[in-house]
Amino acid sequence: MPSAKDVRELAARVRRGDRAAAARALSIVTEERPGHEALAGAFFSDHGASHTVGLCGSPGSGKSSLVNRLVTRLRAAGETVGVLAVDPTSAFTGGAFLGDRMRFQAHSLDDGVFMRSLATRGMMGGLNATIFAAIHVLEACGFSKVLVETVGTGQDEVDVAEVVDTVVCVSAPYQGDEFQAMKAGTMEIGDVFAVNKADLPEVERAVAMLKDALSLNPLHDGGWAPRIAPVSALTGKGVAELAADIDAHRAHLASSGELESRRRRQLRRELSLVLSRRLYRDAMARVTDRHIDLLAAKKSSPQSLGGTLLAGRK
Amino acid sequence: MPSAKDVRELAARVRRGDRAAAARALSIVTEERPGHEALAGAFFSDHGASHTVGLCGSPGSGKSSLVNRLVTRLRAAGETVGVLAVDPTSAFTGGAFLGDRMRFQAHSLDDGVFMRSLATRGMMGGLNATIFAAIHVLEACGFSKVLVETVGTGQDEVDVAEVVDTVVCVSAPYQGDEFQAMKAGTMEIGDVFAVNKADLPEVERAVAMLKDALSLNPLHDGGWAPRIAPVSALTGKGVAELAADIDAHRAHLASSGELESRRRRQLRRELSLVLSRRLYRDAMARVTDRHIDLLAAKKSSPQSLGGTLLAGRK
Repeated sequence: MPSAKDVRELAARVRRGDRAAAARALSIVTEERPGHEALAGAFFSDHGASHTVGLCGSPGSGKSSLVNRLVTRLRAAGETVGVLAVDPTSAFTGGAFLGDRMRFQAHSLDDGVFMRSLATRGMMGGLNATIFAAIHVLEACGFSKVLVETVGTGQDEVDVAEVVDTVVCVSAPYQGDEFQAMKAGTMEIGDVFAVNKADLPEVERAVAMLKDALSLNPLHDGGWAPRIAPVSALTGKGVAELAADIDAHRAHLASSGELESRRRRQLRRELSLVLSRRLYRDAMARVTDRHIDLLAAKKSSPQSLGGTLLAGRK
Repeated sequence: MPSAKDVRELAARVRRGDRAAAARALSIVTEERPGHEALAGAFFSDHGASHTVGLCGSPGSGKSSLVNRLVTRLRAAGETVGVLAVDPTSAFTGGAFLGDRMRFQAHSLDDGVFMRSLATRGMMGGLNATIFAAIHVLEACGFSKVLVETVGTGQDEVDVAEVVDTVVCVSAPYQGDEFQAMKAGTMEIGDVFAVNKADLPEVERAVAMLKDALSLNPLHDGGWAPRIAPVSALTGKGVAELAADIDAHRAHLASSGELESRRRRQLRRELSLVLSRRLYRDAMARVTDRHIDLLAAKKSSPQSLGGTLLAGRK
């Protein structure tokens, strides 16, 4: 268990831009090692220091390659970039995709880029409180942009909208089921829609379909009209325009007052996740074999036993 | 709010095999409508009445078509089948995939089959307590098999192992990233591995790769050696053998004593999910705008405020 002094010193090193210290802090908070709550608490005050951008989209949309292109573009524009790739890796292996590790090497010699894969961990599923702590570490370390890339379809994609300032949804022509999944889950949350594989002739149809779908929902938070950006991660075409759309959204957030309301939503979500995580641990710690015996014998139900366990707490 | 008598009557109708009553009960418990806890409590006693089978696998593996084939096979063998498709649809639309609705029609005239899409809902992500309640409703309704199909990669896939008796992982040759995702998240939880698209020549290589990967983890729960079943959802080839493997696993669970330990694990998970859901609601009800003001002004952190809110409970 690190002492309060250790926590302060590590936080100070991260705030001086020390990448090794940031890597260590990230491991502690995301793997929930001893002291993670104190450390997360220490970095919380950096909330809001960076422009946070979430990138969602199904596997096959070419999102990972697009992130690489976007990082290159942001660096050329003088930004520093932290990237958190949230992957569906299980609690069993705890590891990241081999593919992630490989692609991260593209920027491994650039000190202005920091990339890390995070497993979405454990019992509760979806994005958990540690994603916020991880973002705050990168904010403290001084990155002007923090990208949060979700891998896979599912709850993570929708969750990310409550975690970041700007949401970019990535799709690609002819994705079949994948395109449907995007529509069902993410049409409502996208601020910018990147249509990848713009090198393919089918991209025009995909852009038209997306425009149609978006027209059903023209009023977005604070009067922002979601933008559609055809891009090619393969050739790099359109990536500069995508970066400009992302920055335009950030400027709109500031000028419309929507930034404050999004950040309050982030705070509410972070608090609720921190709370629920603690509560779940509390609840699990109170469940004994005797409770399971009662359930197995059908002498109680989870609902009535839950009530009993909660009443015992008061 | 339904009365205790309403709950009893609805439960009695479901137990007589009334499909319309089952549909209504499912809506109440999965959408957490008024009375859902009383109803879920009433159906809990049916836990364990059916053989529950989880099917996981990434989009593109052809899992949905395979489930349709499997249902047809199970019906031919005299079983009745309930299917719960857990889909990544957002809290925003609350709806199911169009594709799901279409494929469900294949069995819509067969009273021995009941299919329902469930959205994984709201804040907590992943599978939540309502999946257990939904299973118990179908168990009460007398289905001999209850299939739980997860859609998408991610936490749901790993979660399903703590919800069902038998886990079937579906993959397909040449899935690229998808195949990696399966290895990272689900190699440890599969009791049976269905390799779909066995009509393609590449299937042999996929089976060989899977055998290699499984050989790293030869000792499975209770001495079961995971089986590999090449299948073709397109032609139906191998589906009978897959059904036989699933039943062989169920027989193994019973003879080895592993069934009891899996069911206790299910009970523990169900209880913890019910508990944490209630605790979360309680805690969130106590979060006010003043708390968010404190966080926005950086006068507190989620970690210390969480502690204060929980202490206030005692």
